[in-house]
Amino acid sequence: MALDVVIMAAGKGTRMKSSRPKVLHTLAGRPLLQHVLQTVATLDAQRTVIITGHGAEQVEAAVQAPGLQFVRQSPQLGTGHAVQQAVPALGDDGITLILNGDVPLIEASTALALIEACAGRQLALLAIELPDPTGYGRIVRSGDARGGHVVGIVEHKDASPEQRKIREVYTGMMAVPTRALKGWVARLRNNNAQGEYYLTDVVAMAVHDGVPVVATHARDEIEVLGVNSPSQLADLERRYQRKLAEQQMEAGVRLADPARFDLRGTLQCGQDVEIDVNCVFEGDVVLGDGVRIGANCVVKNAVISAAAVIHPYTHIDGERQGVKVGEGALVGPFARLRPGADLGPEVHIGNFVEVKNSTLGKGAKANHLAYLGDATVGERVNYGAGSITANYDGANKHRTVIGNDVHVGSNCVLVAPITVGDGATIGGGSTLSKNAPAGELSVARARQTVIPGWQRPKKAAR
Amino acid sequence: MALDVVIMAAGKGTRMKSSRPKVLHTLAGRPLLQHVLQTVATLDAQRTVIITGHGAEQVEAAVQAPGLQFVRQSPQLGTGHAVQQAVPALGDDGITLILNGDVPLIEASTALALIEACAGRQLALLAIELPDPTGYGRIVRSGDARGGHVVGIVEHKDASPEQRKIREVYTGMMAVPTRALKGWVARLRNNNAQGEYYLTDVVAMAVHDGVPVVATHARDEIEVLGVNSPSQLADLERRYQRKLAEQQMEAGVRLADPARFDLRGTLQCGQDVEIDVNCVFEGDVVLGDGVRIGANCVVKNAVISAAAVIHPYTHIDGERQGVKVGEGALVGPFARLRPGADLGPEVHIGNFVEVKNSTLGKGAKANHLAYLGDATVGERVNYGAGSITANYDGANKHRTVIGNDVHVGSNCVLVAPITVGDGATIGGGSTLSKNAPAGELSVARARQTVIPGWQRPKKAAR
Amino acid sequence: MALDVVIMAAGKGTRMKSSRPKVLHTLAGRPLLQHVLQTVATLDAQRTVIITGHGAEQVEAAVQAPGLQFVRQSPQLGTGHAVQQAVPALGDDGITLILNGDVPLIEASTALALIEACAGRQLALLAIELPDPTGYGRIVRSGDARGGHVVGIVEHKDASPEQRKIREVYTGMMAVPTRALKGWVARLRNNNAQGEYYLTDVVAMAVHDGVPVVATHARDEIEVLGVNSPSQLADLERRYQRKLAEQQMEAGVRLADPARFDLRGTLQCGQDVEIDVNCVFEGDVVLGDGVRIGANCVVKNAVISAAAVIHPYTHIDGERQGVKVGEGALVGPFARLRPGADLGPEVHIGNFVEVKNSTLGKGAKANHLAYLGDATVGERVNYGAGSITANYDGANKHRTVIGNDVHVGSNCVLVAPITVGDGATIGGGSTLSKNAPAGELSVARARQTVIPGWQRPKKAAR
Repeated sequence: MALDVVIMAAGKGTRMKSSRPKVLHTLAGRPLLQHVLQTVATLDAQRTVIITGHGAEQVEAAVQAPGLQFVRQSPQLGTGHAVQQAVPALGDDGITLILNGDVPLIEASTALALIEACAGRQLALLAIELPDPTGYGRIVRSGDARGGHVVGIVEHKDASPEQRKIREVYTGMMAVPTRALKGWVARLRNNNAQGEYYLTDVVAMAVHDGVPVVATHARDEIEVLGVNSPSQLADLERRYQRKLAEQQMEAGVRLADPARFDLRGTLQCGQDVEIDVNCVFEGDVVLGDGVRIGANCVVKNAVISAAAVIHPYTHIDGERQGVKVGEGALVGPFARLRPGADLGPEVHIGNFVEVKNSTLGKGAKANHLAYLGDATVGERVNYGAGSITANYDGANKHRTVIGNDVHVGSNCVLVAPITVGDGATIGGGSTLSKNAPAGELSVARARQTVIPGWQRPKKAAR
Repeated sequence: MALDVVIMAAGKGTRMKSSRPKVLHTLAGRPLLQHVLQTVATLDAQRTVIITGHGAEQVEAAVQAPGLQFVRQSPQLGTGHAVQQAVPALGDDGITLILNGDVPLIEASTALALIEACAGRQLALLAIELPDPTGYGRIVRSGDARGGHVVGIVEHKDASPEQRKIREVYTGMMAVPTRALKGWVARLRNNNAQGEYYLTDVVAMAVHDGVPVVATHARDEIEVLGVNSPSQLADLERRYQRKLAEQQMEAGVRLADPARFDLRGTLQCGQDVEIDVNCVFEGDVVLGDGVRIGANCVVKNAVISAAAVIHPYTHIDGERQGVKVGEGALVGPFARLRPGADLGPEVHIGNFVEVKNSTLGKGAKANHLAYLGDATVGERVNYGAGSITANYDGANKHRTVIGNDVHVGSNCVLVAPITVGDGATIGGGSTLSKNAPAGELSVARARQTVIPGWQRPKKAAR
Repeated sequence: MALDVVIMAAGKGTRMKSSRPKVLHTLAGRPLLQHVLQTVATLDAQRTVIITGHGAEQVEAAVQAPGLQFVRQSPQLGTGHAVQQAVPALGDDGITLILNGDVPLIEASTALALIEACAGRQLALLAIELPDPTGYGRIVRSGDARGGHVVGIVEHKDASPEQRKIREVYTGMMAVPTRALKGWVARLRNNNAQGEYYLTDVVAMAVHDGVPVVATHARDEIEVLGVNSPSQLADLERRYQRKLAEQQMEAGVRLADPARFDLRGTLQCGQDVEIDVNCVFEGDVVLGDGVRIGANCVVKNAVISAAAVIHPYTHIDGERQGVKVGEGALVGPFARLRPGADLGPEVHIGNFVEVKNSTLGKGAKANHLAYLGDATVGERVNYGAGSITANYDGANKHRTVIGNDVHVGSNCVLVAPITVGDGATIGGGSTLSKNAPAGELSVARARQTVIPGWQRPKKAAR
């Protein structure tokens, strides 16, 4: 049956105290609304209608994608009023699924169960049983038990003491026969204290019209938690991260502390991957078999091959270009790999070394306090402590090419564009601005002298 | 009514296993006793009397301030004995509030409610209801319910099975009519197993004398938790940090993980501030609108302006001089800003760069492996990788002045005192000990040569 | 009475999804089986028999030690079958204690109590009471209460609703009269759904034979938790780390956050040691009185003397050689001490400085961006920012010797082997390949010149 999806995304989120519309706040690195849209994308809907309001332009720009329709709600007169705005965009029949842009973690399977319960002829509410239902609208049934027909939703503040004992609550999501929905929302009235149009009033209309009202249940509370404040956002972030950590562990990844693991994107791991405490993964990260990530690493958009070891405090950020680390490479501690760093197998990058837009051949080493930018480095090169590729002349970037088996001494400067031939040696402390021939020792070094009669400076009198 | 405050701070804290007196152990970066004093400072007391004992000199030196009186208790014969020492320092009438130097988080509002309950004519006990009151002295009332008169405090070990069910417990804090207090403590006896004088015995005296005994309740358990061991200190630290994190989130700050946030001082945030996991803030820190702090940063005594981004593993320590980061500046990862670092707008400080006591003009950049100490750097300067200001000649520190639009090459040494003129360029690998003229290229570089016939060293036979 | 110990270590641990045998997965840095063996080592057993199976060779190689016997179980037909394999290796009488290689944290005192309960004439089961016993085999007793005789173990899936209420469960560990054990395991049958031989069937045999069956209880649930998945491993790691943290605090160490403390080895602390958040200790670490460890440090195999301060993000890794830090030394932030770093008293090692296999005399300083490898550095030396010991010529490592009171300028290279005499000064930017005489200024520096008519590069047209 044809499916339309309506996503409520008009709210301001006053308690967020932010200039950003609520649905654009990020959970695990993605906007709340984006989480919902990624789930909706799997539902094979005919139409997806997003109701925007506060910060509508920002929201629309942020999630723009083919097949999405935006409807503006202004002013904002309640959830029922929001759906009224969407009605013209919906089909004539089929099912309409109503979701919330600030309830990001609804699972596709739960949405599908809700749609199936609707079946085009029943009003299906998404419910959940909570140990402490305080504050939620209760699902009222005709009988005592969960088996009875749903006869209404009663808000917490309006609930009788008996009703407050009900632990089955409404989550704000529903699937409705579209034709019936259109009729019901047209009949909504705002004769209540807030002067708002409430979508939940359709339940009473369904009961009145003899349309069966049913409730399906979310499997996990995390699916129905909404975000209204930084505190709720942080709470949901931690619950979600815990779930992501469990998924990784389920797949065999060994985490030193699941409570100190953050994944903001995708993480694909081979066998026997070990991740120490307090690591953060962003973008798309792939870790090969036997990779070990040390404590306190931040890794973004990178492919790290089998048996590579990333020591503590390593910062890898591939941004758009990506970073590649070869098999059995050793990186860190205190290393930084930037976009376009491409390390061959068994490369060693040590402490206080930065690599950007550079390729290093198998077995090359830069172990101490060095910068490699816009460089092509051959195999088995030893790149000395403190050496720098001067790739930027103040106006343009130039390339440094270092052949195989080159030994670059300490504190050298290679002024690009420059080529160092295979097997060349560069004497420590040299600044090279011309090519260095293969197999030879090149130096640019002043003669060592003793200054006669020199006196050390004395501490100045104050 | 005139208020005197007595703070018990004589205890050794044997279980702390420390050479430091217990009340000087720190919570959120400040001594326990200092927390109490900062709350007391808001109460408008006539006198504040601190009873010291173990490590009295250390305690007195640590919290010395105008208006504080110290009274020594030696030997230490119990809480009642402690108050006996304070009696000569108290006024003749009014109210005496008795607090504990190792119960740091009492709120001013709670203290005021206790004082008000005393009203100069009742003995007011600070109580709290605990789910598990084991170990605490129970508040015994004449009736069954909380409404009855307080008739005594019974220690856990002396309590009947029935009394052990009481969950209303005494916290060790009270407000007493001063005149009555003086009479009661004079009558205290030490005829008990420990041979100590117990302040709680005044409750029985009050009942005997017909002085009403009342109990007010602390709102939050955190207010009445004392510190007797490193484990209790750590537990209170985490509870308090959680509370501080909630306060920040309440104000709109977005914390990636409230359980990995530490604030030891003050943190004042603008709108839309984001703080990633595992950051520590010390001293006084101000973060402007839209500031983002990456994972694992440590920030002390700094003002970071709007839209600045602090990347992971950045260490900012302004100590007394402070650190300033300009609008839209980018700092880190692996950067260190030390006292007197003053970065203009849009300055970039990159990895493995240290800045100390230096001013950088708008748009200046030092992106890689560099040291800037005692320098004045102009606008749009590009300070090369590996370059160093040699500010210390072994005896004195000297200043480096770099004009606007200067390009300093890689691995340069600027031997201070030195001035580099506007628009100058310094060739990579140069060590400059004289001023460099504006607009010109200065170099100090040896000629590049190839050493004929040179042979690579061979691996020595072992 | 003679004691034999049998340790079950044949399981594959399918849910670990690892190529490593389950008992070799690490908890707090040591293999699970090693934890058990270290406890067994204190029990004065006559024989210790380890039953291996999956990955037998790996397991045997990993824990090989004098006095251990390995027995292979192949195929693996259940716990009873496993013990059958061990029987030939056991003595004729005395007591056999059966432990599990994947239940690592059994305490020696608990094992001894179990052995004592056996007394060579009873079957003693190790049990524990769990709030939620779901999934565990229940201890069935003749009477209602815990006082009754043990009459059997009933698996959860076979338990009646009444039996499922029993919270006393069997942990998989037992102590058995060896002679009886041999008889019983010979009689085990595999006529069950899985076709396996169950060790627990000996309980019924004991009851049948009139051998009393008793149960002793582990004190702490952590002692009986087994590891079957990465999630269980992580959970046990955190519980164990919490216990280790409590032990440190009990001894007086002040931890900023016990939930962010990891110890994988031994940590011996003096008085008034403070450890900030998120530190990891590996191997054998000793911290003297008053040592402070900053946030996010990783410390392995090091001795840090009294009053030394280790600033945040310091990486100390002594591997086999060890690292020593002298009294009152200051290290970090962003420092790395590698094997053989031996810092004298009051040495300062600052940011982005690496020290390897080098000795620094009292009061020596290397505060910024430097490398000291294979060096002997005298007292009060000031080693300049960006300076490097070029200890590796591409084939061999050589030593640098720096006398007392030497001042090495910035960005110097000391090409080893080289000696710098007492009181020498090395001009900034010098590369020295010859010895520098005591008391004199040595430089190797090109003359500073201005290049006439030089034009800055222009941004290339794209």
